[in-house]
Amino acid sequence: MRINLSIPIFLFVLLALFSYLALAKRDTEVVEDPEIRTCKHQCLQQPQYTEDDKQTCLQNCDAYHHMKQKREKDKEEKFRKKIAHEGYHHKEHEEEEECTEKVEEVDEGGEEENPYIFEEDRDFETKVETDDGRIRVLKKFTEKSKLLKGIQNIRLAILEARAHTFVSPRHFDSDVVLFNINGRALLGWVKESETEKFVLESGDMLMIPAGTPIYIVNRDENEKLVLAMLHIPVSTPGKFEEFFGPGGRDPESILSAFSYNVLQAALQSSKGKLEKLFSQQNEGSMFKISREKVQELAPKKSYWWFGGPSTAEFNLFTMPPTFSNSYGRLTEVGPSDSKSGLEKHNIMLTFASITQESMSTIQYNSHATKIALVINGTGHVQIACPHISSRSYSKHEKSSPSYHRISAALKPRSVFVVPPGHPFVLFSSRKENLQIICFEINARDNKKFTFSGKDNIVSSLDDLAKELAFNYPSNIVNEIFDRKESFFFPFQLPQEERYLRADA
Amino acid sequence: MRINLSIPIFLFVLLALFSYLALAKRDTEVVEDPEIRTCKHQCLQQPQYTEDDKQTCLQNCDAYHHMKQKREKDKEEKFRKKIAHEGYHHKEHEEEEECTEKVEEVDEGGEEENPYIFEEDRDFETKVETDDGRIRVLKKFTEKSKLLKGIQNIRLAILEARAHTFVSPRHFDSDVVLFNINGRALLGWVKESETEKFVLESGDMLMIPAGTPIYIVNRDENEKLVLAMLHIPVSTPGKFEEFFGPGGRDPESILSAFSYNVLQAALQSSKGKLEKLFSQQNEGSMFKISREKVQELAPKKSYWWFGGPSTAEFNLFTMPPTFSNSYGRLTEVGPSDSKSGLEKHNIMLTFASITQESMSTIQYNSHATKIALVINGTGHVQIACPHISSRSYSKHEKSSPSYHRISAALKPRSVFVVPPGHPFVLFSSRKENLQIICFEINARDNKKFTFSGKDNIVSSLDDLAKELAFNYPSNIVNEIFDRKESFFFPFQLPQEERYLRADA
Amino acid sequence: MRINLSIPIFLFVLLALFSYLALAKRDTEVVEDPEIRTCKHQCLQQPQYTEDDKQTCLQNCDAYHHMKQKREKDKEEKFRKKIAHEGYHHKEHEEEEECTEKVEEVDEGGEEENPYIFEEDRDFETKVETDDGRIRVLKKFTEKSKLLKGIQNIRLAILEARAHTFVSPRHFDSDVVLFNINGRALLGWVKESETEKFVLESGDMLMIPAGTPIYIVNRDENEKLVLAMLHIPVSTPGKFEEFFGPGGRDPESILSAFSYNVLQAALQSSKGKLEKLFSQQNEGSMFKISREKVQELAPKKSYWWFGGPSTAEFNLFTMPPTFSNSYGRLTEVGPSDSKSGLEKHNIMLTFASITQESMSTIQYNSHATKIALVINGTGHVQIACPHISSRSYSKHEKSSPSYHRISAALKPRSVFVVPPGHPFVLFSSRKENLQIICFEINARDNKKFTFSGKDNIVSSLDDLAKELAFNYPSNIVNEIFDRKESFFFPFQLPQEERYLRADA
Repeated sequence: MRINLSIPIFLFVLLALFSYLALAKRDTEVVEDPEIRTCKHQCLQQPQYTEDDKQTCLQNCDAYHHMKQKREKDKEEKFRKKIAHEGYHHKEHEEEEECTEKVEEVDEGGEEENPYIFEEDRDFETKVETDDGRIRVLKKFTEKSKLLKGIQNIRLAILEARAHTFVSPRHFDSDVVLFNINGRALLGWVKESETEKFVLESGDMLMIPAGTPIYIVNRDENEKLVLAMLHIPVSTPGKFEEFFGPGGRDPESILSAFSYNVLQAALQSSKGKLEKLFSQQNEGSMFKISREKVQELAPKKSYWWFGGPSTAEFNLFTMPPTFSNSYGRLTEVGPSDSKSGLEKHNIMLTFASITQESMSTIQYNSHATKIALVINGTGHVQIACPHISSRSYSKHEKSSPSYHRISAALKPRSVFVVPPGHPFVLFSSRKENLQIICFEINARDNKKFTFSGKDNIVSSLDDLAKELAFNYPSNIVNEIFDRKESFFFPFQLPQEERYLRADA
Repeated sequence: MRINLSIPIFLFVLLALFSYLALAKRDTEVVEDPEIRTCKHQCLQQPQYTEDDKQTCLQNCDAYHHMKQKREKDKEEKFRKKIAHEGYHHKEHEEEEECTEKVEEVDEGGEEENPYIFEEDRDFETKVETDDGRIRVLKKFTEKSKLLKGIQNIRLAILEARAHTFVSPRHFDSDVVLFNINGRALLGWVKESETEKFVLESGDMLMIPAGTPIYIVNRDENEKLVLAMLHIPVSTPGKFEEFFGPGGRDPESILSAFSYNVLQAALQSSKGKLEKLFSQQNEGSMFKISREKVQELAPKKSYWWFGGPSTAEFNLFTMPPTFSNSYGRLTEVGPSDSKSGLEKHNIMLTFASITQESMSTIQYNSHATKIALVINGTGHVQIACPHISSRSYSKHEKSSPSYHRISAALKPRSVFVVPPGHPFVLFSSRKENLQIICFEINARDNKKFTFSGKDNIVSSLDDLAKELAFNYPSNIVNEIFDRKESFFFPFQLPQEERYLRADA
Repeated sequence: MRINLSIPIFLFVLLALFSYLALAKRDTEVVEDPEIRTCKHQCLQQPQYTEDDKQTCLQNCDAYHHMKQKREKDKEEKFRKKIAHEGYHHKEHEEEEECTEKVEEVDEGGEEENPYIFEEDRDFETKVETDDGRIRVLKKFTEKSKLLKGIQNIRLAILEARAHTFVSPRHFDSDVVLFNINGRALLGWVKESETEKFVLESGDMLMIPAGTPIYIVNRDENEKLVLAMLHIPVSTPGKFEEFFGPGGRDPESILSAFSYNVLQAALQSSKGKLEKLFSQQNEGSMFKISREKVQELAPKKSYWWFGGPSTAEFNLFTMPPTFSNSYGRLTEVGPSDSKSGLEKHNIMLTFASITQESMSTIQYNSHATKIALVINGTGHVQIACPHISSRSYSKHEKSSPSYHRISAALKPRSVFVVPPGHPFVLFSSRKENLQIICFEINARDNKKFTFSGKDNIVSSLDDLAKELAFNYPSNIVNEIFDRKESFFFPFQLPQEERYLRADA
């Protein structure tokens, strides 16, 4: 019943314009699409191809091209319908979003728009910044895409602090999973009548319940401290705040929000004393302190000064891996580790390190949504993503979803999300190991299914089902899918394709 | 602060028009409403009525007519206010929906618009269709009505496959409660290193965790296989997808979304081999296979060939009923049956079979929302639905909600939802048993309360409260409500009304 | 892609107008802001101030004034951006709300608009009203503010019934936490085959599962009965309804929504009999009954007539307090009290009684959102509320959130919400004790942190951290924060400020 007179008129103009442009564009495409030419050229260049192989290859080029055109036409039509539709019913249908933003050329250029890849510059917001450090917060997942509604209460933040920086005491209205990515931290955790000190090394993880007052020190005198903080808000879903109890004007003490007569009565102090107290701190919420003060803040019982071992319960870098071979390593702390504090939120924390020139298996999670943050190295991620292409149901047309690839280059601070059920693969570059820390949301009952390596789901199919499913002799299917290694494999851009890099 | 200049002007015109039409309509109504005449006529025709009874009856006709007019006037006013209001604040108030869509004449005509009844043609969408089968999915419950927000993550799908059809291996990003409505299925469930086979008969239920690759075969050579699948999405709430691992072009293998160099490295196979593999399957996602292949797919250990017993844990048709008499039967599997897998999702599965010419008691669920699917027979459902009619609070006006009836004829594939607290009743037709399978969402702590039969809530009231509540002698109330039978009763359209069929 | 041609034009006009007004307003402000004058005047009047103190005080006035101007400017800018933005993208950004509604002058005038304070007249809606009683329901929390999304499924209702009033049998589609605020109730709870009677005194709490038919009697012949009912809907989130089984025309019996042939078959009674039954009750849903009937409704086993002890499991007024001193008392029933029925909903019920001329400590909840209802006395609440003021990141500008105060006078029936993490303080008036009943939502793992009294979080900081955080010698900080008493303290408006009352 929401009606708006001006929209139909405007839409008519828009549609007319759009249709013209779309048609114009399609014409050119048919005449000179370079992709099909490249594709066919490549078919003929493959030295190991038989004449038969080459014919199949050429046909595939045509089929692919045909499909691609159809898909784009579908998209346009869908888009056009969507616009026409949304003018009237924009409420009901806004949730029908698909991961259809075009991604074909992602590998070459880098970052096309898509719902699962986040860029540091574009998608992080600086919440606090001083000369000595900053806190950056990833935008709300649902702001990126409605497809991410399932993790809408989660927020990811990154804290960076220079050498010997003191991060003022504060509490959050969110439970926090803290992971020490880089550097050496000291964390003061205010308990009932004293402050417990945690000595953290890179790889350490710590669960901090909402409301707990903490302060943090970068106890190293050279290296930057970098912490990932996964916030699970307890007040308003998807929204969290910092509260500074101690402080002055900057950071402003939250106590200064109360009226002076209340403070005078609560603290039994004169107004003058309180005014002084709340006007002294102007250094900001993160500032450098002297080496002596850092040392003085160290836990009393720490042995040969301050290099003592970490006091966190779990270190993702040093604990025994769940899986490891020479191509990669996987470490996990999850809801079933009772001391981790992760049970309540049903989260698993994993660390994957992929050796240079290696790859992970093609895999998917059954139940968990993976929020991944690259902490070191470079590489790529590819995610296969369903989209329902057509509504034509005659037997020889497509009768089921088709899939496209979301793909992105990865570098430190890249963030990507992989929804459950969606197969994905990770691979490192030729020069560096790729290290990724993942927060797996909804981790209980989660299973990893793989498409290659030992016990992959195709090999586990019985032979006849395999044959029927692929319409291909099962012994050839077996030959393709059987492999002894698990989980991490060697990977190189093959020679004949490297010059192209269009498909890496 | 969202302001739109053109809406007020437009609304003014709309309102003027609407008011005119509404008034015009009301005039005619007063002059010649046939309903009140029929009502009064019926009063005078009842042979068993005393003169006193007839007078009460006539008064009731007037009272009902008066109330109906008032209710409609209220609705119009409310609607008018709503329009005027929504022009400005359409966000805040959109959730205030009530089950007020008019349903008075439902019994005669059939299906008026209302929030709880779903029709096969209108409310199902075909997701996949080939010559040999199809999958249809019920629209999102919240798309039907915002009142159904409580079950917004649930989706209901129906799979149909012709004799000897093979339904390709796939996984879903949803946990699935599968119920075999009709026919004889074989289900291949891919486990860690092999495929377990489930032999299913009609009535069998099976819980399939998200991500599990399964294939399905209709192992019968004549009968159609019909499966109900209740999906509980684990990725985006209310949204699920199919993923085909094995496949080719149709169904498209999700593996083909990855770039060839990745596949080559993961599968250690040449590009040519892979291209061939992913171009063979063009049969669609469901297709007919030979009798020999069906036999070959049967579990190895199955005795005298393939007619062996079902291997599912629960069969709703054959397990001991929770309640049974000659008018009906009720069977239940719920969250407390630890092997059912229903605990995690807090769902109970019930099967009700109502003998022809019978009815269920008038009842409501305390906590569960019932999603009901008719699988056999015909009949009717009536649901009592509150709606707050008036805001006039003087003593002799209505001071509390009034109710109306949602009513619908039922046939195979009808779906209806009954929210908790809402009394409802089911009755079968004169010719067929009515068989309904129900998914009860939020089933833990659920209790069924009845209004007739043993231990109904009126009989359980103490006598004085009964007397005060009805303002009627408790011995007469007891006479009306006391009854020995439970849960299912005989039911016939009474003779004197059958010619009318206005109120069946 | 939602575009509306008329909005940009309209916005341009609006913006121009707004900017003009804003500038005009600011000009005046600079010339003659009385607040800064008052502030400075006060500085010079303090008899106990040294010359130094006075200078600090004056500087603070300037700093505060400067900050306030900046904050307002920021707000305006933000607001202007928001309008400009929302014209196009109003969907995505609507959730970015902050508790910024101006509250500076709240203490003087009373109730400014803000997201956490609810007024009886404005924010309650009368759902049912007769001569003998009424039920009022607090508006949906999300209708008040999107910040309250975390408690969107909760509704608070207040039932009032005059002496000897009978509240008709009904059930709700919501679990109900019932708290007897005032008066003496008798509650009839319909169980499987009989009605159990609960004798309630003020302070009693009872958990009533959804669907349970109950009736209520005010068994006192003079005093009004007042019940708080916290509804947790089980059908549509944030929405609940009343269903009257027994009843007639007013309250309308929900049975009358079914067609007569169904009722005739279910109840084995003639249409005439049923028509009579459902036309007798016209007294409304609450009405006065005689003293004899009240007595007759009393539980059979009750001793020396009807003054027997309460039969509820928990009485918040009489149970041993969690904490108590001469300034106040705190009583709690929570999820860990297994008989309370509160575990399922993760709710704690607390009762705080603050002696006149006293205050609570400054405190916050780590996880629970507090829904507080004043039941007796008068006083004030102050809540400290974060708002991100600026985006300027140079070292000497603010680098972190600033806070403002939400403040409100409290009287019986005032409702306020305190989100987790937000510090707040309560204080009573000079004349009356202040009594508050609180529903703490999400109470599991909740901890109370305090800023004054024993074990407050500032005192618990180690000395060096304290010194760094406040930039002030730790011995002075300790002097200010150390105090022997806990939780409740004496509180008086200090003499020198009382004439002002601007800051109480």
